Amino acid sequence: MAQPDPIEKLILELGRLPGIGERTAARLAFFVLKQARDSARFDLPPLAQDLAHALVEVVETVGLCEDCQNLCTAQKCPICLDMRRDVKVLCVVEGVADLRAIESCGGFRGHYHVLHGSLAPLDGVGPQELKLSDILHRVQRTGYNEVILATNANVEGDATALYVARLLRGLELKVTRLASGVPLGGELEYLDHATLGRALSARQSFDS
Amino acid sequence: MAQPDPIEKLILELGRLPGIGERTAARLAFFVLKQARDSARFDLPPLAQDLAHALVEVVETVGLCEDCQNLCTAQKCPICLDMRRDVKVLCVVEGVADLRAIESCGGFRGHYHVLHGSLAPLDGVGPQELKLSDILHRVQRTGYNEVILATNANVEGDATALYVARLLRGLELKVTRLASGVPLGGELEYLDHATLGRALSARQSFDS
Repeated sequence: MAQPDPIEKLILELGRLPGIGERTAARLAFFVLKQARDSARFDLPPLAQDLAHALVEVVETVGLCEDCQNLCTAQKCPICLDMRRDVKVLCVVEGVADLRAIESCGGFRGHYHVLHGSLAPLDGVGPQELKLSDILHRVQRTGYNEVILATNANVEGDATALYVARLLRGLELKVTRLASGVPLGGELEYLDHATLGRALSARQSFDS
Repeated sequence: MAQPDPIEKLILELGRLPGIGERTAARLAFFVLKQARDSARFDLPPLAQDLAHALVEVVETVGLCEDCQNLCTAQKCPICLDMRRDVKVLCVVEGVADLRAIESCGGFRGHYHVLHGSLAPLDGVGPQELKLSDILHRVQRTGYNEVILATNANVEGDATALYVARLLRGLELKVTRLASGVPLGGELEYLDHATLGRALSARQSFDS
Protein backbone atom coordinates (compact mmCIF):
# COMPACT_ATOMS: atom_id res chain seq x y z
CA MET A 1 0.00 0.00 0.00
CA ALA A 2 1.44 3.33 -1.07
CA GLN A 3 -0.22 5.51 1.55
CA PRO A 4 0.06 5.28 5.33
CA ASP A 5 -2.99 4.47 7.37
CA PRO A 6 -4.16 7.91 8.62
CA ILE A 7 -4.59 9.14 5.04
CA GLU A 8 -6.52 6.05 3.98
CA LYS A 9 -8.67 6.46 7.07
CA LEU A 10 -9.44 10.10 6.26
CA ILE A 11 -10.24 9.18 2.65
CA LEU A 12 -12.57 6.46 3.94
CA GLU A 13 -14.36 8.83 6.34
CA LEU A 14 -14.70 11.58 3.71
CA GLY A 15 -16.09 8.96 1.34
CA ARG A 16 -18.96 8.33 3.77
CA LEU A 17 -20.32 11.78 2.88
CA PRO A 18 -23.03 11.77 0.19
CA GLY A 19 -21.83 12.47 -3.35
CA ILE A 20 -18.16 12.07 -2.41
CA GLY A 21 -16.55 9.14 -4.23
CA GLU A 22 -13.13 7.69 -3.54
CA ARG A 23 -11.31 10.00 -5.95
CA THR A 24 -12.94 13.14 -4.62
CA ALA A 25 -12.28 11.97 -1.07
CA ALA A 26 -8.57 11.50 -1.91
CA ARG A 27 -8.43 14.96 -3.50
CA LEU A 28 -10.02 16.49 -0.39
CA ALA A 29 -7.65 14.61 1.92
CA PHE A 30 -4.58 15.81 -0.02
CA PHE A 31 -5.98 19.35 0.03
CA VAL A 32 -6.42 19.17 3.81
CA LEU A 33 -2.82 18.04 4.21
CA LYS A 34 -1.48 20.74 1.88
CA GLN A 35 -3.55 23.35 3.68
CA ALA A 36 -2.11 22.14 7.00
CA ARG A 37 1.43 22.71 5.69
CA ASP A 38 0.50 26.11 4.24
CA SER A 39 -1.34 27.21 7.37
CA ALA A 40 1.71 26.44 9.49
CA ARG A 41 3.95 28.40 7.09
CA PHE A 42 1.69 31.38 6.43
CA ASP A 43 -0.18 31.54 9.75
CA LEU A 44 -3.58 30.74 8.21
CA PRO A 45 -6.50 29.22 10.17
CA PRO A 46 -5.94 25.43 10.14
CA LEU A 47 -8.76 23.83 8.13
CA ALA A 48 -8.41 20.29 9.52
CA GLN A 49 -8.69 21.37 13.15
CA ASP A 50 -11.41 23.97 12.45
CA LEU A 51 -13.48 21.46 10.49
CA ALA A 52 -12.97 18.74 13.12
CA HIS A 53 -14.08 21.16 15.85
CA ALA A 54 -17.14 22.27 13.86
CA LEU A 55 -18.13 18.63 13.24
CA VAL A 56 -17.95 17.69 16.90
CA GLU A 57 -19.62 20.89 18.06
CA VAL A 58 -22.52 20.58 15.65
CA VAL A 59 -23.53 17.09 16.75
CA GLU A 60 -23.05 17.97 20.42
CA THR A 61 -25.11 21.16 20.41
CA VAL A 62 -27.69 20.83 17.66
CA GLY A 63 -30.98 19.06 18.20
CA LEU A 64 -34.51 19.32 16.85
CA CYS A 65 -36.95 22.10 17.77
CA GLU A 66 -39.68 20.52 19.92
CA ASP A 67 -42.36 22.34 17.92
CA CYS A 68 -41.34 22.33 14.27
CA GLN A 69 -38.47 19.77 14.21
CA ASN A 70 -36.14 22.35 12.62
CA LEU A 71 -32.49 22.04 13.63
CA CYS A 72 -31.65 24.24 16.62
CA THR A 73 -29.42 24.55 19.67
CA ALA A 74 -32.25 25.22 22.15
CA GLN A 75 -35.61 23.62 22.93
CA LYS A 76 -37.31 25.73 20.29
CA CYS A 77 -35.85 27.16 17.08
CA PRO A 78 -35.50 30.91 16.36
CA ILE A 79 -38.40 30.77 13.90
CA CYS A 80 -40.83 29.28 16.43
CA LEU A 81 -39.64 31.79 19.05
CA ASP A 82 -39.97 34.79 16.71
CA MET A 83 -43.07 36.66 17.87
CA ARG A 84 -43.32 38.64 14.62
CA ARG A 85 -44.06 35.55 12.53
CA ASP A 86 -47.53 34.77 11.24
CA VAL A 87 -48.97 32.12 13.57
CA LYS A 88 -51.86 31.41 11.22
CA VAL A 89 -49.96 29.61 8.46
CA LEU A 90 -47.96 26.39 8.72
CA CYS A 91 -45.63 25.25 5.97
CA VAL A 92 -44.81 21.51 5.89
CA VAL A 93 -41.44 20.70 4.27
CA GLU A 94 -39.48 17.49 3.76
CA GLY A 95 -36.14 18.75 5.03
CA VAL A 96 -34.20 21.61 6.58
CA ALA A 97 -32.70 22.47 3.18
CA ASP A 98 -36.25 23.10 1.91
CA LEU A 99 -36.96 25.31 4.92
CA ARG A 100 -33.82 27.34 4.17
CA ALA A 101 -34.78 27.66 0.51
CA ILE A 102 -38.24 28.99 1.39
CA GLU A 103 -36.79 31.36 4.01
CA SER A 104 -34.33 32.67 1.42
CA CYS A 105 -37.03 33.47 -1.12
CA GLY A 106 -38.57 35.79 1.47
CA GLY A 107 -42.15 35.00 0.50
CA PHE A 108 -43.20 33.25 3.71
CA ARG A 109 -43.45 34.55 7.26
CA GLY A 110 -45.36 31.75 8.98
CA HIS A 111 -44.31 28.63 10.88
CA TYR A 112 -42.74 25.42 9.55
CA HIS A 113 -43.00 21.73 10.20
CA VAL A 114 -40.00 19.66 9.07
CA LEU A 115 -40.79 16.02 8.27
CA HIS A 116 -37.13 14.95 7.87
CA GLY A 117 -37.95 12.76 4.91
CA SER A 118 -40.70 11.78 2.51
CA LEU A 119 -42.78 8.64 2.17
CA ALA A 120 -40.92 6.03 0.14
CA PRO A 121 -42.38 2.58 0.87
CA LEU A 122 -39.93 0.89 -1.51
CA ASP A 123 -37.03 2.26 0.56
CA GLY A 124 -38.74 1.28 3.80
CA VAL A 125 -39.72 4.83 4.75
CA GLY A 126 -43.25 4.80 6.10
CA PRO A 127 -45.20 7.43 8.06
CA GLN A 128 -43.59 6.34 11.35
CA GLU A 129 -40.13 7.26 9.96
CA LEU A 130 -41.22 10.88 9.43
CA LYS A 131 -41.49 13.49 12.18
CA LEU A 132 -45.27 13.47 11.85
CA SER A 133 -46.49 12.27 15.22
CA ASP A 134 -47.53 15.57 16.79
CA ILE A 135 -48.45 17.57 13.68
CA LEU A 136 -52.17 17.01 14.31
CA HIS A 137 -51.97 18.21 17.91
CA ARG A 138 -49.80 21.15 16.92
CA VAL A 139 -52.24 22.28 14.23
CA GLN A 140 -55.19 22.00 16.62
CA ARG A 141 -53.35 23.63 19.52
CA THR A 142 -51.97 26.60 17.56
CA GLY A 143 -55.10 27.11 15.47
CA TYR A 144 -53.56 27.55 12.03
CA ASN A 145 -55.87 28.75 9.25
CA GLU A 146 -53.82 27.24 6.50
CA VAL A 147 -51.35 24.40 6.05
CA ILE A 148 -49.12 24.67 2.97
CA LEU A 149 -47.81 21.29 1.83
CA ALA A 150 -44.41 22.30 0.41
CA THR A 151 -43.05 18.82 -0.26
CA ASN A 152 -41.12 18.16 -3.47
CA ALA A 153 -42.97 17.95 -6.78
CA ASN A 154 -42.04 14.29 -7.31
CA VAL A 155 -43.71 10.96 -6.57
CA GLU A 156 -42.51 10.79 -2.94
CA GLY A 157 -43.37 14.43 -2.30
CA ASP A 158 -46.83 14.03 -3.79
CA ALA A 159 -47.47 10.87 -1.75
CA THR A 160 -46.29 12.62 1.42
CA ALA A 161 -48.48 15.65 0.73
CA LEU A 162 -51.47 13.37 0.19
CA TYR A 163 -50.78 11.51 3.44
CA VAL A 164 -50.51 14.73 5.47
CA ALA A 165 -53.59 16.17 3.81
CA ARG A 166 -55.58 13.07 4.84
CA LEU A 167 -54.25 13.36 8.40
CA LEU A 168 -55.60 16.91 8.55
CA ARG A 169 -58.91 16.05 6.92
CA GLY A 170 -61.88 17.17 8.98
CA LEU A 171 -60.06 20.06 10.64
CA GLU A 172 -61.32 23.57 9.97
CA LEU A 173 -58.47 24.86 7.82
CA LYS A 174 -57.34 25.37 4.28
CA VAL A 175 -54.81 22.82 2.99
CA THR A 176 -52.76 24.06 0.01
CA ARG A 177 -49.95 22.78 -2.18
CA LEU A 178 -47.18 24.78 -3.89
CA ALA A 179 -48.06 25.79 -7.47
CA SER A 180 -46.49 23.58 -10.09
CA GLY A 181 -45.65 24.78 -13.62
CA VAL A 182 -43.12 26.45 -15.89
CA PRO A 183 -40.13 27.72 -13.85
CA LEU A 184 -39.27 31.42 -14.32
CA GLY A 185 -36.91 31.84 -17.25
CA GLY A 186 -37.96 28.39 -18.48
CA GLU A 187 -38.41 27.83 -22.19
CA LEU A 188 -41.31 25.61 -23.21
CA GLU A 189 -39.22 24.01 -25.96
CA TYR A 190 -36.86 22.45 -23.41
CA LEU A 191 -39.38 21.67 -20.66
CA ASP A 192 -40.22 18.06 -19.84
CA HIS A 193 -43.64 16.78 -20.87
CA ALA A 194 -44.90 16.22 -17.32
CA THR A 195 -44.19 19.78 -16.20
CA LEU A 196 -45.65 21.25 -19.36
CA GLY A 197 -48.74 19.08 -19.00
CA ARG A 198 -49.24 20.16 -15.42
CA ALA A 199 -48.69 23.83 -16.30
CA LEU A 200 -51.32 23.49 -19.00
CA SER A 201 -53.93 21.79 -16.86
CA ALA A 202 -53.35 24.28 -14.01
CA ARG A 203 -53.48 27.35 -16.30
CA GLN A 204 -54.75 30.52 -14.71
CA SER A 205 -56.85 33.40 -15.95
CA PHE A 206 -54.67 36.22 -17.21
CA ASP A 207 -55.95 39.79 -16.98
CA SER A 208 -54.05 42.44 -18.85
CA MET B 1 -31.18 33.84 10.57
CA ALA B 2 -33.01 30.56 10.38
CA GLN B 3 -30.12 28.34 11.49
CA PRO B 4 -28.18 28.41 14.74
CA ASP B 5 -24.49 29.18 14.72
CA PRO B 6 -22.84 25.71 14.92
CA ILE B 7 -24.54 24.66 11.68
CA GLU B 8 -23.52 27.84 9.85
CA LYS B 9 -20.01 27.33 11.15
CA LEU B 10 -19.86 23.74 9.89
CA ILE B 11 -21.23 24.85 6.50
CA LEU B 12 -18.53 27.53 6.39
CA GLU B 13 -15.75 25.07 7.21
CA LEU B 14 -17.00 22.46 4.72
CA GLY B 15 -17.17 25.24 2.11
CA ARG B 16 -13.41 25.77 2.50
CA LEU B 17 -12.84 22.39 0.82
CA PRO B 18 -12.15 22.58 -2.93
CA GLY B 19 -15.16 22.03 -5.17
CA ILE B 20 -17.64 22.32 -2.31
CA GLY B 21 -19.96 25.29 -2.73
CA GLU B 22 -22.35 26.66 -0.14
CA ARG B 23 -25.27 24.45 -1.20
CA THR B 24 -23.21 21.28 -1.19
CA ALA B 25 -21.71 22.27 2.17
CA ALA B 26 -25.22 22.71 3.60
CA ARG B 27 -26.30 19.33 2.21
CA LEU B 28 -23.25 17.66 3.76
CA ALA B 29 -23.86 19.39 7.12
CA PHE B 30 -27.49 18.23 7.21
CA PHE B 31 -26.37 14.73 6.29
CA VAL B 32 -23.86 14.73 9.14
CA LEU B 33 -26.59 15.78 11.58
CA LYS B 34 -29.04 13.19 10.28
CA GLN B 35 -26.34 10.53 10.45
CA ALA B 36 -25.64 11.54 14.06
CA ARG B 37 -29.30 10.98 14.98
CA ASP B 38 -29.41 7.68 13.08
CA SER B 39 -26.13 6.47 14.55
CA ALA B 40 -27.44 7.09 18.07
CA ARG B 41 -30.65 5.21 17.26
CA PHE B 42 -29.23 2.30 15.30
CA ASP B 43 -25.81 1.99 16.96
CA LEU B 44 -23.86 2.92 13.80
CA PRO B 45 -20.34 4.41 13.83
CA PRO B 46 -20.76 8.18 14.31
CA LEU B 47 -19.56 9.91 11.12
CA ALA B 48 -19.01 13.37 12.66
CA GLN B 49 -16.71 12.14 15.42
CA ASP B 50 -14.92 9.62 13.18
CA LEU B 51 -14.30 12.25 10.51
CA ALA B 52 -13.17 14.83 13.08
CA HIS B 53 -10.77 12.31 14.58
CA ALA B 54 -9.39 11.35 11.14
CA LEU B 55 -8.85 15.01 10.25
CA VAL B 56 -6.91 15.78 13.40
CA GLU B 57 -4.94 12.54 13.26
CA VAL B 58 -3.91 13.01 9.64
CA VAL B 59 -2.39 16.46 10.13
CA GLU B 60 -0.73 15.38 13.38
CA THR B 61 0.90 12.23 12.05
CA VAL B 62 1.47 12.72 8.31
CA GLY B 63 4.52 14.51 6.98
CA LEU B 64 6.65 14.32 3.85
CA CYS B 65 9.12 11.53 3.09
CA GLU B 66 12.61 13.01 3.37
CA ASP B 67 13.63 11.31 0.14
CA CYS B 68 10.72 11.51 -2.29
CA GLN B 69 8.38 14.03 -0.58
CA ASN B 70 5.52 11.52 -0.69
CA LEU B 71 3.08 11.76 2.23
CA CYS B 72 4.04 9.41 5.06
CA THR B 73 3.97 8.91 8.81
CA ALA B 74 7.67 8.15 9.21
CA GLN B 75 10.91 9.72 8.01
CA LYS B 76 10.75 7.74 4.79
CA CYS B 77 7.69 6.49 2.90
CA PRO B 78 6.91 2.79 2.35
CA ILE B 79 7.91 3.07 -1.32
CA CYS B 80 11.38 4.44 -0.55
CA LEU B 81 11.83 1.79 2.16
CA ASP B 82 10.69 -1.06 -0.09
CA MET B 83 13.85 -2.98 -0.97
CA ARG B 84 12.15 -4.78 -3.87
CA ARG B 85 11.68 -1.57 -5.88
CA ASP B 86 13.82 -0.72 -8.87
CA VAL B 87 16.40 1.82 -7.67
CA LYS B 88 17.45 2.68 -11.22
CA VAL B 89 14.35 4.61 -12.33
CA LEU B 90 12.93 7.79 -10.79
CA CYS B 91 9.45 9.06 -11.70
CA VAL B 92 8.83 12.78 -11.12
CA VAL B 93 5.16 13.63 -10.49
CA GLU B 94 3.31 16.85 -9.65
CA GLY B 95 1.26 15.51 -6.76
CA VAL B 96 0.49 12.55 -4.53
CA ALA B 97 -2.68 11.85 -6.50
CA ASP B 98 -0.51 11.31 -9.60
CA LEU B 99 1.75 8.95 -7.65
CA ARG B 100 -1.30 6.95 -6.55
CA ALA B 101 -2.61 6.83 -10.14
CA ILE B 102 0.72 5.48 -11.43
CA GLU B 103 0.94 2.97 -8.56
CA SER B 104 -2.58 1.77 -9.35
CA CYS B 105 -1.81 1.13 -13.02
CA GLY B 106 0.87 -1.31 -11.89
CA GLY B 107 3.29 -0.45 -14.67
CA PHE B 108 6.01 1.15 -12.58
CA ARG B 109 8.21 -0.33 -9.83
CA GLY B 110 10.81 2.42 -9.36
CA HIS B 111 11.08 5.43 -7.05
CA TYR B 112 9.11 8.67 -7.11
CA HIS B 113 9.79 12.31 -6.54
CA VAL B 114 6.71 14.41 -5.69
CA LEU B 115 6.99 18.11 -6.61
CA HIS B 116 3.77 19.15 -4.82
CA GLY B 117 2.84 21.53 -7.59
CA SER B 118 3.76 22.64 -11.09
CA LEU B 119 5.35 25.80 -12.40
CA ALA B 120 2.72 28.50 -12.90
CA PRO B 121 4.42 31.92 -12.96
CA LEU B 122 1.09 33.73 -13.43
CA ASP B 123 -0.15 32.22 -10.15
CA GLY B 124 3.12 33.04 -8.42
CA VAL B 125 4.38 29.45 -8.37
CA GLY B 126 8.07 29.44 -9.26
CA PRO B 127 10.72 26.72 -8.85
CA GLN B 128 11.26 27.64 -5.18
CA GLU B 129 7.62 26.76 -4.42
CA LEU B 130 8.13 23.18 -5.66
CA LYS B 131 9.86 20.43 -3.67
CA LEU B 132 12.77 20.49 -6.07
CA SER B 133 15.70 21.52 -3.93
CA ASP B 134 17.38 18.17 -3.42
CA ILE B 135 16.33 16.33 -6.57
CA LEU B 136 19.76 16.91 -8.15
CA HIS B 137 21.62 15.52 -5.11
CA ARG B 138 19.22 12.63 -4.87
CA VAL B 139 19.66 11.66 -8.51
CA GLN B 140 23.47 11.84 -8.21
CA ARG B 141 23.56 10.06 -4.84
CA THR B 142 21.25 7.18 -5.83
CA GLY B 143 22.61 6.82 -9.34
CA TYR B 144 19.39 6.50 -11.31
CA ASN B 145 19.69 5.47 -14.96
CA GLU B 146 16.46 7.10 -16.00
CA VAL B 147 14.24 9.94 -14.83
CA ILE B 148 10.65 9.82 -16.12
CA LEU B 149 9.00 13.24 -16.14
CA ALA B 150 5.38 12.27 -15.43
CA THR B 151 3.97 15.76 -15.06
CA ASN B 152 0.57 16.57 -16.56
CA ALA B 153 0.22 16.99 -20.32
CA ASN B 154 -0.78 20.65 -20.04
CA VAL B 155 1.10 23.97 -20.22
CA GLU B 156 2.17 23.93 -16.55
CA GLY B 157 3.15 20.27 -16.68
CA ASP B 158 5.17 20.77 -19.86
CA ALA B 159 6.94 23.82 -18.40
CA THR B 160 7.73 21.90 -15.22
CA ALA B 161 9.06 18.92 -17.17
CA LEU B 162 11.27 21.27 -19.20
CA TYR B 163 12.58 22.94 -16.04
CA VAL B 164 13.45 19.62 -14.37
CA ALA B 165 15.02 18.30 -17.58
CA ARG B 166 17.32 21.35 -17.68
CA LEU B 167 18.21 20.88 -14.02
CA LEU B 168 19.33 17.33 -14.84
CA ARG B 169 21.19 18.31 -18.03
CA GLY B 170 24.77 17.11 -18.04
CA LEU B 171 24.09 14.12 -15.79
CA GLU B 172 24.69 10.66 -17.22
CA LEU B 173 21.10 9.46 -17.43
CA LYS B 174 18.14 9.12 -19.73
CA VAL B 175 15.40 11.70 -19.23
CA THR B 176 12.00 10.62 -20.59
CA ARG B 177 8.47 11.99 -20.71
CA LEU B 178 5.17 10.03 -20.66
CA ALA B 179 3.86 9.24 -24.14
CA SER B 180 1.13 11.54 -25.32
CA GLY B 181 -1.58 10.51 -27.79
CA VAL B 182 -4.98 8.92 -28.28
CA PRO B 183 -6.34 7.53 -24.97
CA LEU B 184 -7.38 3.86 -25.05
CA GLY B 185 -10.99 3.59 -26.12
CA GLY B 186 -10.78 7.09 -27.57
CA GLU B 187 -12.49 7.85 -30.86
CA LEU B 188 -10.62 10.13 -33.25
CA GLU B 189 -13.85 11.84 -34.25
CA TYR B 190 -14.32 13.24 -30.75
CA LEU B 191 -10.67 13.90 -29.88
CA ASP B 192 -9.45 17.48 -29.49
CA HIS B 193 -7.19 18.84 -32.24
CA ALA B 194 -4.12 19.25 -30.01
CA THR B 195 -4.15 15.61 -28.85
CA LEU B 196 -4.79 14.31 -32.35
CA GLY B 197 -1.99 16.50 -33.70
CA ARG B 198 0.44 15.23 -31.11
CA ALA B 199 -0.60 11.60 -31.68
CA LEU B 200 0.04 12.11 -35.38
CA SER B 201 3.47 13.71 -35.03
CA ALA B 202 4.53 11.08 -32.48
CA ARG B 203 3.28 8.15 -34.60
CA GLN B 204 5.15 4.89 -34.17
CA SER B 205 6.10 2.09 -36.51
CA PHE B 206 3.54 -0.68 -36.42
CA ASP B 207 4.57 -4.26 -37.15
CA SER B 208 1.84 -6.79 -37.70
